[in-house]
Amino acid sequence: MAKLKIGICGWGNVATGLYEQLTNGNELYSDWEISCIGARRDNPRCNPGSVKILRDIFDVVKEDVDILIELIGGVETARDLISEALNSGKHVVTANKAVIFEHGEELIKLARKNNVRLLFESAVCAGTPTIKMLSNDLSANKISKVAGMLNGTTNFILSNMQEGASYADVLKEAQDNGYAEPDPTLDVNGTDAAHKIGILSALAFNTGLPSPEFYIEGIEEIKSQDFIYAEDFNFTIKHLAVAKLSTGGIELRSHPVMLDINSSLAGLKGVRNGIQFDTDLLGAFHVAGSGAGRESTASGLISDLHALSKSNEVSPMNYPDFSNKPNILNFNDLTFKFYVYLEVKDEPGVLALISKTFADHNISFDKVIQKDQLQNGSVPLVIFTDPTIESEMQIALEGLADHPEVLNSKIIRIEDL
Amino acid sequence: MAKLKIGICGWGNVATGLYEQLTNGNELYSDWEISCIGARRDNPRCNPGSVKILRDIFDVVKEDVDILIELIGGVETARDLISEALNSGKHVVTANKAVIFEHGEELIKLARKNNVRLLFESAVCAGTPTIKMLSNDLSANKISKVAGMLNGTTNFILSNMQEGASYADVLKEAQDNGYAEPDPTLDVNGTDAAHKIGILSALAFNTGLPSPEFYIEGIEEIKSQDFIYAEDFNFTIKHLAVAKLSTGGIELRSHPVMLDINSSLAGLKGVRNGIQFDTDLLGAFHVAGSGAGRESTASGLISDLHALSKSNEVSPMNYPDFSNKPNILNFNDLTFKFYVYLEVKDEPGVLALISKTFADHNISFDKVIQKDQLQNGSVPLVIFTDPTIESEMQIALEGLADHPEVLNSKIIRIEDL
Repeated sequence: MAKLKIGICGWGNVATGLYEQLTNGNELYSDWEISCIGARRDNPRCNPGSVKILRDIFDVVKEDVDILIELIGGVETARDLISEALNSGKHVVTANKAVIFEHGEELIKLARKNNVRLLFESAVCAGTPTIKMLSNDLSANKISKVAGMLNGTTNFILSNMQEGASYADVLKEAQDNGYAEPDPTLDVNGTDAAHKIGILSALAFNTGLPSPEFYIEGIEEIKSQDFIYAEDFNFTIKHLAVAKLSTGGIELRSHPVMLDINSSLAGLKGVRNGIQFDTDLLGAFHVAGSGAGRESTASGLISDLHALSKSNEVSPMNYPDFSNKPNILNFNDLTFKFYVYLEVKDEPGVLALISKTFADHNISFDKVIQKDQLQNGSVPLVIFTDPTIESEMQIALEGLADHPEVLNSKIIRIEDL
Repeated sequence: MAKLKIGICGWGNVATGLYEQLTNGNELYSDWEISCIGARRDNPRCNPGSVKILRDIFDVVKEDVDILIELIGGVETARDLISEALNSGKHVVTANKAVIFEHGEELIKLARKNNVRLLFESAVCAGTPTIKMLSNDLSANKISKVAGMLNGTTNFILSNMQEGASYADVLKEAQDNGYAEPDPTLDVNGTDAAHKIGILSALAFNTGLPSPEFYIEGIEEIKSQDFIYAEDFNFTIKHLAVAKLSTGGIELRSHPVMLDINSSLAGLKGVRNGIQFDTDLLGAFHVAGSGAGRESTASGLISDLHALSKSNEVSPMNYPDFSNKPNILNFNDLTFKFYVYLEVKDEPGVLALISKTFADHNISFDKVIQKDQLQNGSVPLVIFTDPTIESEMQIALEGLADHPEVLNSKIIRIEDL
């Protein structure tokens, strides 16, 4: 069989990692040859030998390649590049979750129209199998819920905070070690995980990609103290992205949660990613693995190359029917059990005030614990609620904020896995 | 596209489960139609409606079917049936681990020769993705170790013993609930897990299937007391099947182990199966899910049907090169840390005798704990050793058995995951 010719666009950490893997002489990689690389500048980390370098990435589309691998990142230029490649009859492999989340519908239609394929295994959890697994291995199952720790940086920070480190110190350590971007905003604010759960939701529930207006919250407000309170009740804190079939629509959200410390996902440390799929036939099914880094991403990219070299078919995957717009439920209408942290003045009547306010909004308590006085003289109250409608909780907290006795408040939703 | 015609051979629990799934009207299953069923007798559990019933399963091969699904179990008749089907140009899907383990090499060659495919996803961990995942999603990776809890019955028994139940009581409960076969021998003695790890080893290390003469030990000798001692040192006891690339060959074994209670596999309870794959690119990768039962098996069978209806290609999988005979290392030469349990007479000099015997065989202790006297007056000693060669441990234990002061001994190997 003739080797498939590859053009790589982008020449950063992931692209050079893929190059090094494909050229290391391993016979696993003998199906492909790298014809050219689109790189605006050289990368001191990697010498591409005699491979043709093109300074304009769009020139890669004009070359005699079967597969274009898009690793430039970003959204709009990546969209244009992928579109041109598909329109030129080339298969495209990408690790770019943002461009798939925002333009996947249009791009997959374009691939179908041109009788080529667009694969994106590495867009979710890098090489840890998710996309093809959902579409192929789980194809017999009705999926009712996907709950994932989908961002390695976030999990690195939280699992180190669980051991007692501070948010700022761990973030710095993650940046020093290359686990976190110099600007980690999209990781720590929940956006990256939101893109990934949006893609998984479309695949799991056979809908179009959701619009980005669902509930997204980051980990910036989590404090070491929260872990100590959580642990008292056998919980830990993780960032979770959730897509769940519910009456009348889909719950879609990306935010910190309290997890039972014995649940499978709670045990994942460091940059590991993990997902629980609730299914009708397989029950709760878990995958976990390295969700970031050049090696893991190369693994996912090569599994896509492998799928292309194995089959000439246009669509090896059960791509969702993108005409079927997902109905994303209003976050305010969802029901959660809450962890509520309040700092209140040490005065008579404060607990009565709080109890009454919550009771007025139909919020009942599972547990209430008053902690030792803080240095500033205030008293922490830790409350675990019974199931409560999100909007009622928000209104109750707004009501409490009007009272000078309540100095500070925070909620973390509890997730049952 | 014309529907693929299926003939189901066997009409027990798994076959009727598959039938019910495929005929429930779900559009996920619209690619196939069941043409006939080979069933020696009716099954009161399931009425196959107007589907043609053949009392001789070999008659299914003569029917106009594209795919034969072998669910009769056993080895030799299954081998004959699969061979006839492949020779008649029919694809075969099977959940039968024993026939694949014993005759997979010959059967896959036969499939290739006849330009058809033999798929067996459900042979390992039922529908929990393992076979196609190893061959496709992990195709870029060099696998160095596969360690799996591959038998649901065993794990059900051990995880209930961990909570304090006795072996006999849990086995009875498992049988009453249908988790264990009326004759559970092949499950509890480690053979079933051994078949599965043999198959995974061939796929992971690209070799032929191993001959069955590797180390296999069951869980029959595990006592509730062992869990209590294990827990004191943050271990629990699981049955693990392991295939590991090592200097000069492959470690292959199926036996009880002590696992760190915080390791990912240690947390799997009930009939769940789980596997850790150590890989070069993805690091430690885990899957876990339901590893037995008619629903889970149907999920795996349908994922194979799906692979057949998606592609006309002969080999969608990186089938191992069966000409490459695996070199299975001698178990006696392997090195383990051991948990050693001894019951000794409460007499002066006994600890000295034991210490000297072990020292004579280069076995050093990590920890030694003398427990309270038992009712019979003997004293339990719990020893955790440093890394020790298996044969040295065996000789030391034989030496101790000659001394009347040593009443009883047992070892469990410690596995680092």
